[in-house]
Amino acid sequence: MKQKKLIVIGGSAAGAKAAARARRIDQNAEITIIQKDPDLSMASCGYPYYVGDLFDDRNMLLCTPTGVVRDSDFFLKTKDINARTEVAVAEIDKVNHTVTCQDANNGETEILAYDKLIIATGAKPKMPPIPGIGLDGISTLLSMRDADYLRSLVDEKKVKKAVIVGGGLIGIETCEALQLAGVEVTIVECLPQLLSFLDWKMAKLVENHIKSKSVNIILDNGVSEFVGEDGKLTSVKLGDGTQLPCELAVMAIGVAPNSKLAADAGLEIGTLGGIAVNHKMQTSDPDIYAAGDCVEIKNLLSDKNVLAPFGDLANLQGRVAGENALNGNNASFPGTIQSGICKIFEFSAGATGFSEQTARLAGFTDIETVINASPDKPGFMGAKLLVSKMLVNKKDQRLIGYQCVGPGDVSKQVAVAAMAIQGKQTVDDLVNSDLPYAPPFSLAIDHFIASAHIMQNKLCGRMIGISAEEVEGKLKAQNSDDKPFLLDARSPVEFEEMRLGVGEKLIPLGALRGRLDELPADKEKEIICYCKISLRGYETALILNANGWKNVKVMEGGIMAWPYAREK
Amino acid sequence: MKQKKLIVIGGSAAGAKAAARARRIDQNAEITIIQKDPDLSMASCGYPYYVGDLFDDRNMLLCTPTGVVRDSDFFLKTKDINARTEVAVAEIDKVNHTVTCQDANNGETEILAYDKLIIATGAKPKMPPIPGIGLDGISTLLSMRDADYLRSLVDEKKVKKAVIVGGGLIGIETCEALQLAGVEVTIVECLPQLLSFLDWKMAKLVENHIKSKSVNIILDNGVSEFVGEDGKLTSVKLGDGTQLPCELAVMAIGVAPNSKLAADAGLEIGTLGGIAVNHKMQTSDPDIYAAGDCVEIKNLLSDKNVLAPFGDLANLQGRVAGENALNGNNASFPGTIQSGICKIFEFSAGATGFSEQTARLAGFTDIETVINASPDKPGFMGAKLLVSKMLVNKKDQRLIGYQCVGPGDVSKQVAVAAMAIQGKQTVDDLVNSDLPYAPPFSLAIDHFIASAHIMQNKLCGRMIGISAEEVEGKLKAQNSDDKPFLLDARSPVEFEEMRLGVGEKLIPLGALRGRLDELPADKEKEIICYCKISLRGYETALILNANGWKNVKVMEGGIMAWPYAREK
Repeated sequence: MKQKKLIVIGGSAAGAKAAARARRIDQNAEITIIQKDPDLSMASCGYPYYVGDLFDDRNMLLCTPTGVVRDSDFFLKTKDINARTEVAVAEIDKVNHTVTCQDANNGETEILAYDKLIIATGAKPKMPPIPGIGLDGISTLLSMRDADYLRSLVDEKKVKKAVIVGGGLIGIETCEALQLAGVEVTIVECLPQLLSFLDWKMAKLVENHIKSKSVNIILDNGVSEFVGEDGKLTSVKLGDGTQLPCELAVMAIGVAPNSKLAADAGLEIGTLGGIAVNHKMQTSDPDIYAAGDCVEIKNLLSDKNVLAPFGDLANLQGRVAGENALNGNNASFPGTIQSGICKIFEFSAGATGFSEQTARLAGFTDIETVINASPDKPGFMGAKLLVSKMLVNKKDQRLIGYQCVGPGDVSKQVAVAAMAIQGKQTVDDLVNSDLPYAPPFSLAIDHFIASAHIMQNKLCGRMIGISAEEVEGKLKAQNSDDKPFLLDARSPVEFEEMRLGVGEKLIPLGALRGRLDELPADKEKEIICYCKISLRGYETALILNANGWKNVKVMEGGIMAWPYAREK
Repeated sequence: MKQKKLIVIGGSAAGAKAAARARRIDQNAEITIIQKDPDLSMASCGYPYYVGDLFDDRNMLLCTPTGVVRDSDFFLKTKDINARTEVAVAEIDKVNHTVTCQDANNGETEILAYDKLIIATGAKPKMPPIPGIGLDGISTLLSMRDADYLRSLVDEKKVKKAVIVGGGLIGIETCEALQLAGVEVTIVECLPQLLSFLDWKMAKLVENHIKSKSVNIILDNGVSEFVGEDGKLTSVKLGDGTQLPCELAVMAIGVAPNSKLAADAGLEIGTLGGIAVNHKMQTSDPDIYAAGDCVEIKNLLSDKNVLAPFGDLANLQGRVAGENALNGNNASFPGTIQSGICKIFEFSAGATGFSEQTARLAGFTDIETVINASPDKPGFMGAKLLVSKMLVNKKDQRLIGYQCVGPGDVSKQVAVAAMAIQGKQTVDDLVNSDLPYAPPFSLAIDHFIASAHIMQNKLCGRMIGISAEEVEGKLKAQNSDDKPFLLDARSPVEFEEMRLGVGEKLIPLGALRGRLDELPADKEKEIICYCKISLRGYETALILNANGWKNVKVMEGGIMAWPYAREK
């Protein structure tokens, strides 16, 4: 039997996984990985934790669970894969089924033949042509080399101040790493919020937490110039003229698919710049597959293509490409619902499916949302706060998005929501979810299920919700008659400890039935009820409704989800 | 409008929730809770943590998230619910729509009328008529009174030795509580394993962990007598004559539904002894609902009734009963997939859906299982082990069960599986699950997804698995020719640190291709490959298959899932 020749371009997540899977599918194939970088199978999502000194041994980013470094020798011996590092592919000739390689060390070129080719060239950092961007002291955090560089700066303690350009996942994780290493960090983000996979308010809660760690955050502002002396960065100048002295700037404004090699070879490129593939991970050339950050894939909710450069998806796609390249397209990768998560100090922030913003952009206009704030566990087990936002498509009542932030067990919340979206579950399914319960792990009614309960109450009109953002907007009304009546349902003790201080009236829920005369006589007046998390706020609203007030709303998530400054 | 009169019998999880929900549905109804015990809304699943001195204030078991104790005053003021404690219901007269109550303190009786009635009488501990069971020093852990009693023993440090009768959830949690309080604990279980919601091997891994904490575990043995002096327990005598000296015995052999009141009233009782209800939580009398541990509900996988006395389900059922009693059966509780979890020292153990045992009992005979062992996170993030067992119904390839144990993040694993079962997802759905990934939370390919990958490999015949139990059985063969050839694919260093020591051959995966001559010449010989977690074991098997060996199996989960003693 003729040995099939498989070449995989790229040896990080998608490429290494594709090659390993291909070997498991076919023990006889000749499998070669061509890797530009010196390392292989890098756990690139772990770079921030290495930079942040969570561990010292850089090999931990490169090794198997039993501690063996995945180098060329490892690939050869355990997988019978020829992994050639520091070799770049200069050209793909799809007609003749060859790739032209160039050795990075001696510049020699070589032409290799393939039967099947897998492109896993990853993504490259976006580096806009800002003046001074070539100065020493400007880095990204996307390669092992970047990680080594930043870690050396941390170890040498030479950097006092750093600016991180971009408040997305990588920017945020890098921020934590540097701040924990004692660096004074400023994040500069050109959008009005951090973490654009979250809706504004959820991102604001994360921002408040990051600021509490003495990190400086500048939003709605971009870099106009990197200023230096003797070729070394000394400060970053912003669009509004602000100058931020620093010795280090990390560019983290996102990545773009590395699809040039594919484009040059005449393969179809998608409208977003990623290599076009079908659900078999096959490009426009049936003998060429592609996987990982270099491709664009389908968003399963919108049915539109997206760029989703996540390590987990790269692995799943690589697995499919590796199998299909040698075994005739049996495997499929249907697409993504764009689940993601990050840790930032004591907070986690995660999302799956649509945000409200992306849902509307994708044409989902008739949606209902719920903000829920609650502990993740009973108080006696050391409860931590969760704040979440659930999105449902009203037409079919399906869950289409879920975001969660806070110090609590966010990861489980988002994972559960991801499975619910994947399973096309409706609110009626979710309200009776049978999740594993015991006090060390959750409340008797889990936060996620409680969100579904609130959603059900909203959808059937039992509860009229209002967001903190809307409330804040209404409080700005010129005419005091136009301002809503705000009713805080907590106890006086709680009120003394913490309060909005925006002119609210305090009537504890337990006293409300006897103090209805303190409420507006005008039964049409807009009354907004809340408490710490707005469960008592909800019960307050029900009492007011039953007593004839007609315009009563509940501020969702209560004070715990209030993203603005408070009086106390 | 005439006020509806709703009476709820029982004020713990299901009853309190039903009453609270009923109030939210109808602000005008007259709602009364009749509660036998002095407390209300007890977080009964938290009792073991109170006994174990995790916290001191017993009110934490009774209070809202903001620290207000849910007593009669709380129910009256905040919920306008008349919660009468220390009052027992002696009789339900469904014809006349009345209940006869008796005050526990003065014995006075009273007849109350209802329009709708909700029965939430919970469950009672099974107390078989073992000689001596009335001695002082024998308790259960199912009421606040039990919790107070056991906590006082712990505080007074009077108990040196305790026997826990029953190795289920409550027994295990009580075991941890007492052991942490310095008591020498023995668990006696009449079945051949602990935690019968797990299959034997999974339970064995938990058992090994509990034993490592110096807890004594006796299986396959029951209590024949409680021995005492002066009315006080001094030892427990087992069926085989063993005598265990102790000052305390906790009965934890399970609970039975408290359905006598309902039965006496002529309501239909199910074959399992629970009150029969439809999916509206309505009993055979349309004006009487029931919820919580006193009812039997549908298992959604088998479509057969089960007893599922879990706090989370009690709350969900109470919510439905409370709504339907006052709002005409709009809400539904479809049933359970019997998800459960417990913490025991550094381990968690959880399950959802069927175990292999319960699947077979329910008539699912054509199933495939996968044992998977892996870290929950990358090594550099402080990985902890997960061992899981996945069950799929071969006919439709649907996930029907998942068990997980270990020190890792078991709770998320089981929650994800529960949502997948609820969503009727198949293996093809699961292999590309889009879960939120970042190194602090999971591997790039999450343990759960990896389990689905292995399942897919098994279902398409790419991998032939074998369980540790089967391997151990085969090793007992009299004739050495009948024993399989065991091949450990790890490194010599790993082999020195830990090994089965059952006559296995060590050939590291990386050296295998050059050492095939050390394998049995007989290509029909049964060869069983494994490593630490059996990923290298799987790759070893693929190489052997490709080289002509025809009877090659992978021992699933590797050494990490080996439940027996090892040489090292």
